[in-house]
Amino acid sequence: MKPIQVGLIGLGTVGAGTFHVLQRNQAEIRGRAGRGIEIAMVAARNAERAKAFQAIVGDGVPCVADPQQLVDNPDIDIVVELIGGIEPARSLVLKAIANGKHVVTANKALLALHGSEIFAAAREKGVTVAFEAAVAGGIPIIKALREGLTANRIEWIAGIINGTTNFILSEMRSKGLDFATVLKEAQRLGYAESDPTFDIEGVDAAHKLTIMSAIAFGVPVQFDKAHVEGISSLQATDIKYAEQLGYRIKLLGITRRRENGFELRVHPTLIPASRLIANVEGAMNAVVVQADAVGTTLYYGKGAGAEPTASAVVADLVDVTRLATADPDHRVPHLAFQPDAMSNTPVLSMADVKTAFYLRLVVADQAGVLSRITTILAEHDISIDAVLQRESADGERQTDLIILTHDTVEGRMNEALAKMQGLPTVLAPIVKLRKEELA
Amino acid sequence: MKPIQVGLIGLGTVGAGTFHVLQRNQAEIRGRAGRGIEIAMVAARNAERAKAFQAIVGDGVPCVADPQQLVDNPDIDIVVELIGGIEPARSLVLKAIANGKHVVTANKALLALHGSEIFAAAREKGVTVAFEAAVAGGIPIIKALREGLTANRIEWIAGIINGTTNFILSEMRSKGLDFATVLKEAQRLGYAESDPTFDIEGVDAAHKLTIMSAIAFGVPVQFDKAHVEGISSLQATDIKYAEQLGYRIKLLGITRRRENGFELRVHPTLIPASRLIANVEGAMNAVVVQADAVGTTLYYGKGAGAEPTASAVVADLVDVTRLATADPDHRVPHLAFQPDAMSNTPVLSMADVKTAFYLRLVVADQAGVLSRITTILAEHDISIDAVLQRESADGERQTDLIILTHDTVEGRMNEALAKMQGLPTVLAPIVKLRKEELA
Repeated sequence: MKPIQVGLIGLGTVGAGTFHVLQRNQAEIRGRAGRGIEIAMVAARNAERAKAFQAIVGDGVPCVADPQQLVDNPDIDIVVELIGGIEPARSLVLKAIANGKHVVTANKALLALHGSEIFAAAREKGVTVAFEAAVAGGIPIIKALREGLTANRIEWIAGIINGTTNFILSEMRSKGLDFATVLKEAQRLGYAESDPTFDIEGVDAAHKLTIMSAIAFGVPVQFDKAHVEGISSLQATDIKYAEQLGYRIKLLGITRRRENGFELRVHPTLIPASRLIANVEGAMNAVVVQADAVGTTLYYGKGAGAEPTASAVVADLVDVTRLATADPDHRVPHLAFQPDAMSNTPVLSMADVKTAFYLRLVVADQAGVLSRITTILAEHDISIDAVLQRESADGERQTDLIILTHDTVEGRMNEALAKMQGLPTVLAPIVKLRKEELA
Repeated sequence: MKPIQVGLIGLGTVGAGTFHVLQRNQAEIRGRAGRGIEIAMVAARNAERAKAFQAIVGDGVPCVADPQQLVDNPDIDIVVELIGGIEPARSLVLKAIANGKHVVTANKALLALHGSEIFAAAREKGVTVAFEAAVAGGIPIIKALREGLTANRIEWIAGIINGTTNFILSEMRSKGLDFATVLKEAQRLGYAESDPTFDIEGVDAAHKLTIMSAIAFGVPVQFDKAHVEGISSLQATDIKYAEQLGYRIKLLGITRRRENGFELRVHPTLIPASRLIANVEGAMNAVVVQADAVGTTLYYGKGAGAEPTASAVVADLVDVTRLATADPDHRVPHLAFQPDAMSNTPVLSMADVKTAFYLRLVVADQAGVLSRITTILAEHDISIDAVLQRESADGERQTDLIILTHDTVEGRMNEALAKMQGLPTVLAPIVKLRKEELA
């Protein structure tokens, strides 16, 4: 059988990685897929990269500057989009689909924002859009959620799905350094981009979480409804206090089924230090899934990098090669559920989200302060799990008061916080972090 | 489209769990599969269970005592075999295949011993045998290995794939109890069978490992070549010494690619306490996979129990329902590789397996003992990583000497051990455990 013909758009880190993995493991991949997978054409804007590529492969594989040429090439069966960003990626993917080609992409931003449009177009043309590489790099989490756990009603997902921020948090904790110092170190080591905004502000994690929520709950991708909070204002002192209380702080993407909708939120989160996911260090990723039949499962691995991401891209190529022979109605649906089984469950507003809280208050070191604060919490029906009061040094007029609460809805907590913040004995803005037991 | 018709053989824990999950999550499962999955007939030897089942479902689903009736029923598309053991499971599965039915099974013993025969029969008839539930219960590890990591050359797999023994080891460590005491506790709690031999002697883990090795390396299942060692002779004192040296002891199934073949072994193993898998406690399972493109990935979850196992059985039912519409050449191959791509790489003998070792010697407390032992190791080219010598109490004439070695082949280690054992100052049989860095 003729090898399936692949067009590769983008020769950056992941594009080059995909090319190398396909070449190096050619025999293994053909042995598994039952059919060769051949890169028939490459598109790269960067002339230097194109030249270096041409030097490796010779003239056998044409490398063009204009990706339009590639998506219009009638010999190509599958288009692999690895340029990232919204445009021109969106137009190229839609054009490839219109031309009847299957698409493999690692582009989380594109799918989190325009997934509905893209999947609808693919359905209409009877082609598949595969995107394992868009979430958690090399970890086969899309496959696990969509096929492995297909028997289950998924209750919640909580993931460390951004390696940059997990590296920064690991370093802040183990070395006791502050955010700015560690960010510089991460940039020097290549773990953070020169403009790190998307990573450190939680946007990248929210893109990935949005895709997982759609697959888990059978809802459309709706990034615009996600609550997104990063780690740039997180202070080393809170990491330290959390540790004293038996918790680690991780940037988690959490999506959870509730009675009237589902939660969709990315924020720094305290989790018990004994949980497996609390011990995921450095740039590694991990996703915990809670589902009704299987219980808790966890998936761990590298969430980024040339070859880990290529591993997912190539797995998709093999899947698409196989699925292409099944009739479209019997392929794995893009978002796990058949289009007519999708639901319009709403995303809950943060005011309705229920979590426990970590509060740090800088208070005047005088009698009655704790009582006034606990009274406000009691008036809002918020019960206290633990209190940690720092010994104030001699002569100091202020001290840190840390409170862990039990679960409460965030709206109510915000009302209580406004009252506490108004007390003359509360001397600085109160730090509020969410806490999850993940059990 | 008419729901696919399933025949369920066995109404034990997993059989009942499968029935309940299919019923409870009917709507979700149909929404994902695009087609209903209906249990059309059940076979159960146990008359009481059959009666209880009939009381729940009414007369709509016939429940027969003779499974032969079920595999011969022309209305049934997929046979689910959940009775375990070799016979009559083997004959029933082969008969179902001969009758042109797809098969889903959780039977690891059957596949580890007779997989080659069963997969060949299935290939000939163009049907699929699915077995996600046979390895690590609800964790979708077969799917991950076979599809998720399909781009990779897999280097090694190391798994905690038996919950009973992991529960016992966790309890021995955390409570400092001995094996016999914890085994009784495990039996009382239902974590161990009344005859626990298959679990505690490592046989169950070896069945699962054998299946994973075939998928990872494209070799036939060959349980008879596996090295199988359990935990029944493991002593609490070695768990304690290991901990002092920074290690945990886990019963691991390890299969690893080497130059002249591959390793296939189950035995208690020291692993660094900082590894994620070292922190998998209680009856939980976890599998670490090292592969060339993706690096290290880990999969964690419940390895047994009614609903976790049912989760895997039902996922297979959905997969088979889908794949049935693809032509047989383009389905996922049973053992990941197409039959003509399988290799005959041999299983290495333990004498050729390379690991580090933990040795515990009971030695006379006198000058020159350590020097004689280290000389023997040096003569065999075995280098020492760490030594721990217990302080002997006043008046004691003997003491414990613990040695961690660097990597060496086991044949050489055994020669050195025979010499050490012959020393008059070595007062008891030497304890030898293997150590793996898993990195």
